[in-house]
Parts: sequence; structure tokens; C-alpha cells
Amino acid sequence: MQRGHRRPGSTAALRVSNERAILRDLLSNGPATQSELARRTRLSNGSVSSIVKALRGRGMLETSSTVASGRRATLVTPRTASRTVAVGIDLGRSHIGIAVLKPGRELLLEKRVAMTPETPAEQALADVRQLLHASLGELERTTDDIAGIVFGVPGPVDRERGVVVDGTILPEWVGRSADDVSTALGIRVELANDADVGALAERAWGSGSEIDDFLFVKIGTGIGAGIVADGHLYTGGFGIAGEIGHSTVDPTGALCRCGNRGCLETVAATPVILQYLSEAFGRSVSRSELGELASTRHRATMRVVQDAGQALGQSIASAVNILGSKLVIIGGPLSETGDVLLDPVREGFARFAIPSVAERTRVELSRLGEAGSARGAASLAFDRADESAYLIDDADNILLSDVDNNSSAS
Amino acid sequence: MQRGHRRPGSTAALRVSNERAILRDLLSNGPATQSELARRTRLSNGSVSSIVKALRGRGMLETSSTVASGRRATLVTPRTASRTVAVGIDLGRSHIGIAVLKPGRELLLEKRVAMTPETPAEQALADVRQLLHASLGELERTTDDIAGIVFGVPGPVDRERGVVVDGTILPEWVGRSADDVSTALGIRVELANDADVGALAERAWGSGSEIDDFLFVKIGTGIGAGIVADGHLYTGGFGIAGEIGHSTVDPTGALCRCGNRGCLETVAATPVILQYLSEAFGRSVSRSELGELASTRHRATMRVVQDAGQALGQSIASAVNILGSKLVIIGGPLSETGDVLLDPVREGFARFAIPSVAERTRVELSRLGEAGSARGAASLAFDRADESAYLIDDADNILLSDVDNNSSAS
Repeated sequence: MQRGHRRPGSTAALRVSNERAILRDLLSNGPATQSELARRTRLSNGSVSSIVKALRGRGMLETSSTVASGRRATLVTPRTASRTVAVGIDLGRSHIGIAVLKPGRELLLEKRVAMTPETPAEQALADVRQLLHASLGELERTTDDIAGIVFGVPGPVDRERGVVVDGTILPEWVGRSADDVSTALGIRVELANDADVGALAERAWGSGSEIDDFLFVKIGTGIGAGIVADGHLYTGGFGIAGEIGHSTVDPTGALCRCGNRGCLETVAATPVILQYLSEAFGRSVSRSELGELASTRHRATMRVVQDAGQALGQSIASAVNILGSKLVIIGGPLSETGDVLLDPVREGFARFAIPSVAERTRVELSRLGEAGSARGAASLAFDRADESAYLIDDADNILLSDVDNNSSAS
Repeated sequence: MQRGHRRPGSTAALRVSNERAILRDLLSNGPATQSELARRTRLSNGSVSSIVKALRGRGMLETSSTVASGRRATLVTPRTASRTVAVGIDLGRSHIGIAVLKPGRELLLEKRVAMTPETPAEQALADVRQLLHASLGELERTTDDIAGIVFGVPGPVDRERGVVVDGTILPEWVGRSADDVSTALGIRVELANDADVGALAERAWGSGSEIDDFLFVKIGTGIGAGIVADGHLYTGGFGIAGEIGHSTVDPTGALCRCGNRGCLETVAATPVILQYLSEAFGRSVSRSELGELASTRHRATMRVVQDAGQALGQSIASAVNILGSKLVIIGGPLSETGDVLLDPVREGFARFAIPSVAERTRVELSRLGEAGSARGAASLAFDRADESAYLIDDADNILLSDVDNNSSAS
């Protein structure tokens, strides 16, 4: 009956809801200056300052002096003695990644295990389950400590239908829902697209941390993009935005697995590049060999990667003409070929972007590498977690009793 | 010194800021149910209900019963005896449009005057000034009653640089800033892109009113798009998102005025279609004649419009693959050719969109027609108006004294 103290719609309730917004933001996004908090929560600077003071008085926050945009500012850091964690899973064609975060995006654990592309979905899920429990054991945590799990898959996740839809590079996964995966793992998970969680990782730890409008392009077996718009992940009306792999680069080109012709994926995805090289060499060329060939600037390899890069640059230009992104971050396995890929991407981009975009939008390689996706998924898990799942609920009681005191004192 | 009553960061200040958010939303967006208000302002249902009750008590709102999503709901309507208006200007190559709105998006006046494409910018600005003052006179308003003016131009408006940039169909306007235009008009205006304000008109009065994620494509002398994402206009990092006219449909095609090759505008804008027909007929074909030819389903006209439509469909598909829009609205002068244009656009779209988009995203013609842009600009003027410019500031004093009463009563 503790909640009964709070009259719905009362000034006290308003205060609680705003304190909650601040705590939640700090737990999810980590330390921030008071002005950043005001911007992120849409509360006034005055309100934030007052709430921070009160929460600090209760030992829930720490504040320290810092400098932001050349001015003195107050940095606010959440104090959580909690055991709460969020988990991110990154499922690929040939790997499973896991990342475990504490509130404030503090990385506790990161692991990656190899998998063969032929691994059936059921086996992959059993492997994920084992990896999850091994990781929790290592951290001396249990499933009770998990605020949320986000499971990243290399394909579009349809929010309206709640399932992985056509377009994934794992055909066995089409039609699978979060419920199916949760049942197989024995714990509640949410599904997300791998490029979307990759974009969130760039937002939290990578070169997108200071840029409110950017595009993360992941190039591997498939090609997908995650969009950050006005500082937030944008997934479109159906949850499947960012399907850059199926932009048309040649209307009369090769048939694509999506059913169209001449999609970007038919000229620039890793398997296509490997196939060109394998045909030229008369033997199978592996993904790891591609990296070696590129690093020695092998002539034929340079050429196919360059052709792919130019096509990528063209598609990225069309996307950025629409989105007006300030930054494009190239990630995924193919980005490991470095400048061999980046130079022609930049060239294609400069050629096909409108001048006012071409002049200013930067195109860079991801600095996070393969680890990004699992971490980004874990960070999304905190964002999506129900507030009852982590410390906010404990805080609620403290807040409420405190607000009642405040009210009678005012 | 009235403002001195409000201690920054106090609970009273928090309350005022939330009351303000609700009033501002109602003035800008018009009547809404309490749940809609909660969603739009990100306040809790309880807070909204409490604030609405208080504001109704002060005679600032009216409430009535309604039904929303099959449930009984409370409809909240702002009561403003104010003379406040917002003005939208729509400048095209061959017209000037004006719309004047009262708070709550109520249309007071709408006018459109023809202009020759050769009209110099200075003359166009003088014409706008005259139209503005004539319109105010007709409404018995003065410039003091204007909360804001948004001036829509057919070209990208760079937010970072504050000017019209390359890509506009009015080359004389490149480099002009809001300050320049304000000086010429003798009153403060903001600049905006015509497709962006067209999208806002569709959001307020057209088929986008119920759809949070849609794309408005304006086809005329140039081709531009306005993006509504998660219910809000999205203009990208530089303010110039939506440049669909410069997506590449043929990398070896005709040179475009942007400096690239084979842009959508080189095959699908109105002047290109008129030029094809003029060449075929051996005489100049006008824009109004194009409409007549299309309505009689003239064979050569059908063919060039169809080719343009298919290219449009392809570019729209690439844009929607990235954006995941649920709806595409086609507007601008060329949309007046109706199904002659719409059918091939739909065909091209279905052919080049990924299946999960092609199946669900609808492509429609705008029902608002040419009037949309000026109205959309006026609605943006309310959204952008400084709160001191309209009734909120009067309300502030009332709110503050009231909040002080509330505080002592609690």
C-alpha cells in the first residue's frame, strides 16, 4: 500500500515521475552533466538541478565538477550498489557474442565463440543458453539479476509482427519471434537487428557518441544499416528501417535473395567478393584469407574490394541524401580490410552525394570492431527494461516517503 | 518581478513547466484527448489529468466527452480569446501562397497569387510583403498579432549555416538567410524547405494525420521529400534531409544541376517531361497543357509520365527501404496528373522495395493539393514560435500565482 501515499496527478506524483526519469536516464546512459540530463529528459535546468540535489542527499547520486563545452559543469554519476546487469547477445553466421553491462554502461564481461555457418538454429540457441549461464556464473550473478536481455540477429526484426522477417542471412530464423527465442533460452529476451544494436554501440562507445545524426553501415554476409536520428535509434514504422543492402545499384543486375535485381548486396557483400576471388583463383578463398590478401594489397583483391566499395559509396550517398546524416560509420567484418575498402567508399560517396552533404558528412571505419554489436544489444536492454526490473523500484519507496516529507515541509 | 515568485528548480517551477508544455501543445496541435496529451508531452496520465483540471478551473481550457479507440475519453480544447495568428508563406517558381492560422490550426485565410518564373527575388519579396499586409488587413490583424512566420522555399535550407543552399530551383536564392528575408519583409521570419512544410500539412490535415512514419514527396520543377519520423518532422543533421531528387537512377545518365549524373530530377521533374513533349511536338508544351494531355490519356504523354513514374517509384523504394515509412504521399504540381503518374510510381515502388515494405507501405496522392505548403508553414510557425510571442506568457503569471496558492495549500 506504499503507493497509496501518492495521489495520482498530485504535485508529489509529478515530482516522483521526474525523479524517476532522471534516475532511469543515468542508469541507462551513464554519467552526464546537469545540462545533458535536462536535454535528455526534456526537464528544465532548474528542475534537474533541484532533483539532483535531493537524490544526492539520499545517497543515490554523486556529483563532481567537470568542464563541458568549455564551461564549468556538474557531472552527475549514479550510485548503485545493485547487482543488476543487462545482457546483449550478438548472433552471426559464424559466431555468438555476449556482453554483460552494469548500469551506466559499465562493461563487466565480453565473450565471443565461433560457430559454423551450418549450425542449426536449435543448436545455436542451446549454445547461447550455455554461454549465458557460463557468463553469469563467472560474474557470480543469477538470472534474477538480469534487468533485460536483447538478442541481436542479422536480419530485419519486424516490430509490428514481432518476428524476424525475410531478408535475414539466416533463413532458418525467418518467422521466429521473441517468444520462441525466450522459450528456447528459458528467459525473457527481446529481438533486435544487429545493425541497429551496432549503431547504439557507436552511440555509447564509438565515434557516434558526440553526433546526434549518423548512419552505421554493417557489411558482412549481408549489408544493413542502423540509423541514429536526433540522438535516438530510429527503426521506422515497422521496425525494419535501414535496409540499405537492398538499394538498387544496377536495375538489370544479378538476382538478389530478396527477389529484386542488382541490390547492393549482390555486388558488395563478403560472400560475393569471396566468390569473385575463388573463381579467379580456381579454389575456395576464405574470409580470413581475404583480410591477408587486402593487407598485402593483392591486385585482384584490391580491384574487387574497390568495386564493392564504390557501389557501397553510391548507396550510402543516396541514403545520406535522404537522411542528412553528419557521419557514416562503416563496421562489420568487411571493414577489417581497412583503407582498401574505405577509400573507394569515400570516392563513391563524394561522387553521388549532393554537394552540401558530400562536403561535410564524414565517412569513417568503426573503431569498435566486432565487439560492438553485443555491447550495443546490452545497452538497448537497459533502455527497454521495465523499471520494476531494476533499482528504480527500490528507489521508488525511498522517493515516495521523501516526497511526502517534502510536501508537508513546503 | 512576477517571475521572482518561482524558485528555480522548485516543485512549483516544475509544475509551471509542465502546465506550459500542455498549453503549448494544445495551441500548436489543437484539441486532444488527455491520453494524446500525455503521449505528446511525455507526461504521465495522472499529471495531465491534474493539470487539465487546474487549467480548466482557470478558464483556459474546455473539456468534453468523446470516444477514442473505442473508449470514452476526455477531449481537451484550448480557450484562447487571443488575436494571435501564425503565418505561412509558400514561395514557388510561379506562385506565392499565404495561409494564416489561429492557435489550434484553425484556418483563417488562404490565398495564392501567380508569379512569372522570371520574377527577380527582390520583386518576389516585395510581392510577399504586399500579400502579407493585405491578408492581415483583411483579417483586421496587425504584425503585432503574429506569433511567427515561416517562409517555405523550394530548396534545401541548411540549419547549420542558416541559409538556402545549392539544390534549390531558384538559383537567385542560394546563400540567402532568414535575416536577409526578414529585413526585406520588415518582420522576423524563419526559412523552411517546401517539402518539409508540405509534410507537416499532411501530418495536420492530410492522410498523414494518423501515421507516425511517412514520406511526403513533392514533384514539380524540382523533387524533394519531407520526412515524418516517430510523429515529428525529421530534417537531419544539417537541416537538409529528404533530397530524394538527387538519388541516382542512372549512373551514366544526363548531367544534373547538382553536378552529378542521372539524378531522379533529370528524368522525372516537370520541366524534363515538358521538354520531351515539346521536342516530340516541335512546339513548346505548357504545364497546364500537360494536365489536359494526361486527362485525355494522350499516348506520348502517358509514356513520358509513366517513365518518370517508374523512376520515381524506384527512388522512393530506396528511400523507404532506409526509412521504413508506412505511407508515401505524392504531392506537388505533377501529382495533378493523377493515376497516369500514380500507377507507374506504385509499380516502380513494388518492384524495388524490399518485400516486407512493398507489401505494406501504401503510396497515395496528396488530397491537400497545392494549398498544403503554406498551411504547413503556418503550422510550423506555431511550433517554432517563442513562447513569449503568444498567449503562454499571459498565462504564465496566472499559473505562477496559482501554483503559489497550490503550494501553500498542499
